[in-house]
Amino acid sequence: MPRPATTSADALLDALVDVVVDRGLDAVSVRTVATAAGVSIGAVQYHFATKDELLLAAYRRTIDQFTARALTLADHAPTPGAYIRALLAELLPLDDARDAELRVALAFTARSPHSPRLAGLYTAGYQALVSAVAHALDQAVRSGDAAADVDPHRDAITAVAVTDGLAWHALCAPDALTRDDTLTALHAHLDRLLPNRGDSNTTDGH
Amino acid sequence: MPRPATTSADALLDALVDVVVDRGLDAVSVRTVATAAGVSIGAVQYHFATKDELLLAAYRRTIDQFTARALTLADHAPTPGAYIRALLAELLPLDDARDAELRVALAFTARSPHSPRLAGLYTAGYQALVSAVAHALDQAVRSGDAAADVDPHRDAITAVAVTDGLAWHALCAPDALTRDDTLTALHAHLDRLLPNRGDSNTTDGH
Repeated sequence: MPRPATTSADALLDALVDVVVDRGLDAVSVRTVATAAGVSIGAVQYHFATKDELLLAAYRRTIDQFTARALTLADHAPTPGAYIRALLAELLPLDDARDAELRVALAFTARSPHSPRLAGLYTAGYQALVSAVAHALDQAVRSGDAAADVDPHRDAITAVAVTDGLAWHALCAPDALTRDDTLTALHAHLDRLLPNRGDSNTTDGH
Repeated sequence: MPRPATTSADALLDALVDVVVDRGLDAVSVRTVATAAGVSIGAVQYHFATKDELLLAAYRRTIDQFTARALTLADHAPTPGAYIRALLAELLPLDDARDAELRVALAFTARSPHSPRLAGLYTAGYQALVSAVAHALDQAVRSGDAAADVDPHRDAITAVAVTDGLAWHALCAPDALTRDDTLTALHAHLDRLLPNRGDSNTTDGH
């Protein structure tokens, strides 16, 4: 038997993202990812035995990449409010890279109600995001930057819902909602929670 | 050639919804829908030549059913604010019927970036919903029921995003966000736009 050509797991996951962005999740298979990566089916199976293993690994990597960006933002944001604005803006399709990331995330999301392992990852990622926003909102309440009626946990749930809803609408109805519209709408929402915008020009120039 | 057994298009679309709810959109095909409906493949093809035709028809029916419910709500809501609350609550997975409807809608949504015809339907439905909410918010501004800082179009975009985001999170992360949580969060969001809640007990008892 010929030995499979060597290739990294990361290169295969990059190829999977290309397949999803170009043709949708329906087109993903061990075979199409092998073709997109320019390797044999055996080379894919060396890392990922099945399509489900491929999808789980790609989803996990998306979450890890977002978490790494979130930690960098936390280190650089001057205030809790600025951190929330920057963190949630990272989830909007404001450039081609995030647009591609969102297409992959949406495809996985739609599959998760029928895959317990994907659903577990989805829930963990969702809870981590809500907790991060709630923690920062709590800090903003203590520092006096939040509006008087802010409830950190409740308003974190809503802020994350606004963000994902806007991202989804811009992705699926781009003729009705542009990328810029999503950022304007997100900031208008956050302005009600965090009226003190004095620091926000350090994060995205809005 | 044997004549296909007769069956209505509606019965086939009901069978398609059953397949999506039980096994996900990946499982939908002319063959699985025929099996679920207890008819021959030819009986399905008599109405829908391809899987894409089936999906388009099911998506169009979902939108039509929602539109019919929205018109009934408009006839019965005592104020524009009550109409907005009732209309958006219809989009949350508050019972098993709406949960199933949302699973179908999410599956279609995820497919729409790779299907121009589905994307066209999605965009039209999205725009109609935002317009309906913006129109009602405009009426609430004129009647004095809306907060002073409400911008009908901008706040309609955000309210629809909150609603779809909450629905999506409850569907995909039910351990983290319950059905009741979605209604509480939606009302908390709308309370900021429409502080006059005197009429809302006529719509959902919240």
